[in-house]
Amino acid sequence: MGNGMVIKHIAYIQTDFKEKFGIPRQSGRVPSLMGRIVFLPEFRKSEALRGLEGFSHLWLIFDFSKAHREEWSPTVRPPRLGGNKRIGVFASRSPFRPNPLGLSCVKLVEIRHTPDEGDVLIVSGADLLDGTPIYDIKPYLPHVESHPDAVGGYADAVHDHKLLVEFPAELLEMLPEEKRQTAIDCLAEDPRPSYQEDAQRIYSMQFAGFDVHFRVVDGCVFVTGIDRI
Amino acid sequence: MGNGMVIKHIAYIQTDFKEKFGIPRQSGRVPSLMGRIVFLPEFRKSEALRGLEGFSHLWLIFDFSKAHREEWSPTVRPPRLGGNKRIGVFASRSPFRPNPLGLSCVKLVEIRHTPDEGDVLIVSGADLLDGTPIYDIKPYLPHVESHPDAVGGYADAVHDHKLLVEFPAELLEMLPEEKRQTAIDCLAEDPRPSYQEDAQRIYSMQFAGFDVHFRVVDGCVFVTGIDRI
Repeated sequence: MGNGMVIKHIAYIQTDFKEKFGIPRQSGRVPSLMGRIVFLPEFRKSEALRGLEGFSHLWLIFDFSKAHREEWSPTVRPPRLGGNKRIGVFASRSPFRPNPLGLSCVKLVEIRHTPDEGDVLIVSGADLLDGTPIYDIKPYLPHVESHPDAVGGYADAVHDHKLLVEFPAELLEMLPEEKRQTAIDCLAEDPRPSYQEDAQRIYSMQFAGFDVHFRVVDGCVFVTGIDRI
Repeated sequence: MGNGMVIKHIAYIQTDFKEKFGIPRQSGRVPSLMGRIVFLPEFRKSEALRGLEGFSHLWLIFDFSKAHREEWSPTVRPPRLGGNKRIGVFASRSPFRPNPLGLSCVKLVEIRHTPDEGDVLIVSGADLLDGTPIYDIKPYLPHVESHPDAVGGYADAVHDHKLLVEFPAELLEMLPEEKRQTAIDCLAEDPRPSYQEDAQRIYSMQFAGFDVHFRVVDGCVFVTGIDRI
């Protein structure tokens, strides 16, 4: 193909998010979010992972599979800028891009040997939808990819926006123990699509098999209910 | 497409390397290496870059266009390990991967407005072949992508391998002044395909329109001649 190429899924990731709403806006924002990367049978070979155990972080190049469009728009409205300011698509990490490729840095927790799925990568900090197809996995190279002094443009100003979270104990206890802090941390990231200031509105975040209902009042998340899906 | 997708070139990069030999093995290793990213007409829109000027570093997702193969191999032999140790392809940055996608972090030097090519990105530190097609450009997000404490596996042990370079002044002066230090820095990176210890062997690095001939003796590069191509 003269002007592009065909790329193939090599793996997919399992996460606690079956919907986009609630997923942290960048990888690593909620370090406790766990993911499980399962290779497709054709790419399920232990040798292909040899040496990976020595790296603490990985890059995932993945398919923004819910963001495929025929046309592309040169600008996007990042939710973190309130949803009303337009930024160039190449100055953003929006999924709606000419080639819907995502890039996330995750922590490698474990390479787990399984009888049915071969070697599975357990990762943390993933900001991916459950079932997202993956095109490539690469080791993170700190000596050339860690730039603590890099300037992050408009993203620098907004990245530490966090909400307080009021999660009543009797509701929190409905979640499995190992998911509780993660749910709180995801809510603190402010899952609202933009800074809507409607204190009456009830939002619902699907997480780990539960619907978590909440309102946001004066910068604080109040969880109002929780249902098993 | 159920099991993958078609991706399209959005831009290509112009660099001083028309051949793979001599290109530093990772982006940023030779910070003075300049590149010029030109968008294809369909993607040549100033608005698509709005806000990019505020970022110091960019990610390029590109086509390892000289590394397309019908079959993939689960292991590769990184040149930095001497070329005889096998590492899993997903634990390497080798171009020979199931999907030949490259990932490089470069510095954004300038967004240059040109009459014929629209807005061109001037970048530095690029480890890409001249003419490499690019699939995506994303801003580097230091608050989630800079991990100075990350562990870089086998790559940590070898990344600071550098050679001394003896470049006789009368040969060095044949290069344009602004290319001289860059040529020295690229040679110091040890362009040999593996640690061949044949002190008689003459290698040639094509760089910026010149053939630079050299030998390597006891960890030192001796430039022996230079020709305009």
